[in-house]
Amino acid sequence: MGGDHGPSVTIPAAVSLLRHESDARVVLVGRPEVVDPAVQSNRGEFGDRLAALGASEVVAMDDKPRDALRRSKRDSSMRRAIELVKNGEAQAAVSAGNTGALMAISTIDLGTLVGIDRPAIAASLPTLKGQTLMLDLGANAECSPEHLLQFGIMGALLVSALEHKDSPSVGLLNIGEEEMKGNETVKQAGELLRASGLNFYGNVEGTDIYRSTTDVVVCDGFVGNVALKTSEGLAQMIGLFLREEFGRNVFAKLAGLVAWPVLSAFKKRVDHRRYNGACLLGLRGLVVKSHGSADAYAFEKALFRAIEAVRFDLIRRIGERMAERAASASETGAGA
Amino acid sequence: MGGDHGPSVTIPAAVSLLRHESDARVVLVGRPEVVDPAVQSNRGEFGDRLAALGASEVVAMDDKPRDALRRSKRDSSMRRAIELVKNGEAQAAVSAGNTGALMAISTIDLGTLVGIDRPAIAASLPTLKGQTLMLDLGANAECSPEHLLQFGIMGALLVSALEHKDSPSVGLLNIGEEEMKGNETVKQAGELLRASGLNFYGNVEGTDIYRSTTDVVVCDGFVGNVALKTSEGLAQMIGLFLREEFGRNVFAKLAGLVAWPVLSAFKKRVDHRRYNGACLLGLRGLVVKSHGSADAYAFEKALFRAIEAVRFDLIRRIGERMAERAASASETGAGA
Repeated sequence: MGGDHGPSVTIPAAVSLLRHESDARVVLVGRPEVVDPAVQSNRGEFGDRLAALGASEVVAMDDKPRDALRRSKRDSSMRRAIELVKNGEAQAAVSAGNTGALMAISTIDLGTLVGIDRPAIAASLPTLKGQTLMLDLGANAECSPEHLLQFGIMGALLVSALEHKDSPSVGLLNIGEEEMKGNETVKQAGELLRASGLNFYGNVEGTDIYRSTTDVVVCDGFVGNVALKTSEGLAQMIGLFLREEFGRNVFAKLAGLVAWPVLSAFKKRVDHRRYNGACLLGLRGLVVKSHGSADAYAFEKALFRAIEAVRFDLIRRIGERMAERAASASETGAGA
Repeated sequence: MGGDHGPSVTIPAAVSLLRHESDARVVLVGRPEVVDPAVQSNRGEFGDRLAALGASEVVAMDDKPRDALRRSKRDSSMRRAIELVKNGEAQAAVSAGNTGALMAISTIDLGTLVGIDRPAIAASLPTLKGQTLMLDLGANAECSPEHLLQFGIMGALLVSALEHKDSPSVGLLNIGEEEMKGNETVKQAGELLRASGLNFYGNVEGTDIYRSTTDVVVCDGFVGNVALKTSEGLAQMIGLFLREEFGRNVFAKLAGLVAWPVLSAFKKRVDHRRYNGACLLGLRGLVVKSHGSADAYAFEKALFRAIEAVRFDLIRRIGERMAERAASASETGAGA
């Protein structure tokens, strides 16, 4: 029940999801005075498909992860939701709350899968021809070649889950000039990815992200976070400039009215809300992070992503793939 | 005379510059059969303010830097132009050619300034409130904290040259979440920048680039290149979507006609051509790199940037600042 807008967004999104997905069940985790009435007022329509779990605390958007982990916040809605996943009572937790806290609580409470060193944050970006999944987007500021390989494996499986593709292509984010191509980590990651059995495309550049050159783009969390936030900043600037120009004077406003259907078709195409819902990958359970500013439409998309991943049995598949890797590495005597 | 369009862009740009800047002189460096007639046909208007220097070779856009450095390409127009700077016959060289080759030839022929470990590529991006200078954009895939500090010093001086600001603010590109804030290199660079006497703002995120939070954004060449190219890709996608939507049917085309003045005002605001011209900073001479696809308008902007930097005496000022640092470091007994 976190995020910038809280229950006013998450409850309508859950209700809408239950209407669209007849086999889904939702547990609202939050302050009892908020979640209990929401469940009661919808009991007629959904029966026990909508349930409530009370939590006395809320992780604030500006809480430090270490504060969120403290005993005083043990009974936070974020922690309770993740415990449902841990105990097998829920197949996924979806939160619009504080990213750092969500990652910290998830990692400590769920633990990572065998063969995964670090969880990563993966999200889809709208592109020329559909979407590109990018990871890591900020969980790991420093990564080894092995980490980047693990991101590639997890990212490819997530694309299979979300887009029903058999063998998604994986690109390694790098820079262009031949002589200065990449740093040592990226060069070695390229070798690991080439030998991994993944559908590895090779190096891609920043321009390739929005050209849909590959289904998955792998990078360390520092680079991924900068690319994501730079894109956010540029998109905001372009949107603002468009609004300013169409509001500049009476003529421009009239032109905006005439062009309104065209502008809204354009807006729909670049609408990142459709792709809301970043997956925290590598954990022993499914956790999806919605953008903090998501509205009900966007939050429902994040819930739907969680359902798609559950239907694909994503966590089990990642676990199996990593276990296979560990087994074949120990057979050949090489390190995992 | 390189770049995607060659002399058909660079010669008209030079002619236009000479008309606007009465104290400027331009030497066209390229194949004699191209540059000699251009000079002759403009002799009446410019006299000896426009000169030609013949070169028998051209560095191709896809030449590897090591090929461009080979003896067979000693008489390339790129090399001859840089030699003019080296010999004091020109105050700056401007090229739309191959970036890697330009950096390699410039570094070897001109050398770096005392106190500078590595040259960097710096360019301005159009932002909400004007422009932000960002460096490094791809010359150095791996940087030490000291390198990032040197970029900050050089970037601040370049902004003083281009925007006539006394004490430009400098931001260090980082990622947001508190617990995972940055890698070790960035953390240490922050300490160096804080102690540097620069107007250091602190950490900035990707979103801050287009918000003009600081005048200068410092980052390593890997991150900078990814941020730049991701922006390019996103801007291209948005531009294409806008054109597609306004071309979708007769109604949309009519709406586009009505909205045309508004759309062109918008286009002008996001026109990156105005900011064309990246500076190769840290060399013992001024070298400016134009975008390879620049048209005459954009290439003239790159020429103008070179003039602004020369008027500010940028290279001497960077050299002095670095020499001061080296002197104060040896006084205090600390390493430079």
